[in-house]
Amino acid sequence: MNNVIDGKETSITIEEEVKQCIKGCIIRPSVAVIQVGDNELSETFIKLKEDACNRVGIYFRYYKFEDGTSELTIINKIKELNNDDYVNGIMIKLPLPEKYNEKRLLNTIINSKDVDGLTDINIGRLLSGRKTIIPSAVLSILTLLKENNIELKGKDVVIVGKGKTVGRPLISVLLNEGATVTICHSNTLDIKRHTLNADIVISATGVKNIITEDMVKENAIVIGVGCCIEKGKILDDIDSKVLEKNSIVIKALDSIVPLTVSMFLKNTLLCYSNKK
Amino acid sequence: MNNVIDGKETSITIEEEVKQCIKGCIIRPSVAVIQVGDNELSETFIKLKEDACNRVGIYFRYYKFEDGTSELTIINKIKELNNDDYVNGIMIKLPLPEKYNEKRLLNTIINSKDVDGLTDINIGRLLSGRKTIIPSAVLSILTLLKENNIELKGKDVVIVGKGKTVGRPLISVLLNEGATVTICHSNTLDIKRHTLNADIVISATGVKNIITEDMVKENAIVIGVGCCIEKGKILDDIDSKVLEKNSIVIKALDSIVPLTVSMFLKNTLLCYSNKK
Repeated sequence: MNNVIDGKETSITIEEEVKQCIKGCIIRPSVAVIQVGDNELSETFIKLKEDACNRVGIYFRYYKFEDGTSELTIINKIKELNNDDYVNGIMIKLPLPEKYNEKRLLNTIINSKDVDGLTDINIGRLLSGRKTIIPSAVLSILTLLKENNIELKGKDVVIVGKGKTVGRPLISVLLNEGATVTICHSNTLDIKRHTLNADIVISATGVKNIITEDMVKENAIVIGVGCCIEKGKILDDIDSKVLEKNSIVIKALDSIVPLTVSMFLKNTLLCYSNKK
Repeated sequence: MNNVIDGKETSITIEEEVKQCIKGCIIRPSVAVIQVGDNELSETFIKLKEDACNRVGIYFRYYKFEDGTSELTIINKIKELNNDDYVNGIMIKLPLPEKYNEKRLLNTIINSKDVDGLTDINIGRLLSGRKTIIPSAVLSILTLLKENNIELKGKDVVIVGKGKTVGRPLISVLLNEGATVTICHSNTLDIKRHTLNADIVISATGVKNIITEDMVKENAIVIGVGCCIEKGKILDDIDSKVLEKNSIVIKALDSIVPLTVSMFLKNTLLCYSNKK
């Protein structure tokens, strides 16, 4: 369909750029991913990242802890990775099982290795409009819009979802680009009233088909970032009927997911370049 | 007029509470305010803070640098204050003259003395929903709404202005309270389309009378935070005709300004209590 923007090509280009850069490195860049407990969607995404790292030459380390592992054990592993000169980026796969203090764990990562841009200081830098590491998913949305010459300045953008990995950091990026931003979430009484007026709708909830065709105006740009998994199949926030509405649609699985993986590689390289 | 919420009484109560707390301190809490260059509005506000500090027993230090002073001189003063055990809070009066790197200066303040909550790490903590120092003006808005039993959860709130002292940190606070938040600013093409649907409009631009009565719906709550000064008189963002619209109005000079001063005292006390 010609009203679907496909991010795969862009992701391949970025991956190739990263690969070429790495060819020039004496010591290979290395990234560590920490997972706690089982989560099918998390594992799928980690596998995508691992495969991509292998393709471009980033050394990939994977630490999986059982649900129930003490927080101290995980904190000690993070500290060990902080102090390891051969680890350039550290990522904790979210969401963690509820009993863990996500913020404490995230903020144990030293700033220069925060490959996902989620420590308080990096989030704050982003909100203040300073140069910092931008979360991969947010970077992929921004890249796709820029690649397709979609201007953000003066546009009405509605974000659905106020999560810490996409919704919240996205606010900062969009404001810095001059968009008018509305954030809807589970407490919003009438999401449709907001989305129906938006030039761009970005949905990051992980609720299947939450954005239906009656919720978006004609010619709107609709971006699905959130994902869920059902019977091994990845689904996203955008109902397929939205495509019939003459909207431009960016789907999670086709575009945002592969691009987010490429941006993760790029962020790893950024951490590698920034190391002291 | 009975549709004006007056914050003065609340500000007096808070000031009294701070005063009582300070009576129990062997070493007096102390706050340092740094100003660079001349600015009539800044000087007015600094004077209000100084007077309030004197009333409650906070030791007030004021450092004024001429416009043109080297950034290094100012940075060295901040570092000196960081290391001074008898200084609990440090505030740089914004805006600075344009040639100064505001972010670098702000981030020189150590986190525990950041009385205005504007270092990157404090801004990030706020966005992540963590306990932190909240900028005084933002705290005063939140307090006034709570004092008057105005629920934020599920409400449509439009912020006009995306500045770093009010607009941006306010987003985090409102999202944490469950409001749906829209941020309009100088790039927004049609501010009125947004404000007209809002349950609560918060204007933080410093542009005189930018919010007019045709821009707000009946029974909306309209809060003026931004100020400007004309012939020695402080004016705010809300046109007086908004009062005729059956809206509930919170004016900057009557409510937000005195409450912000009280919150500054409270934040100083918080820094004092947090010191190691």
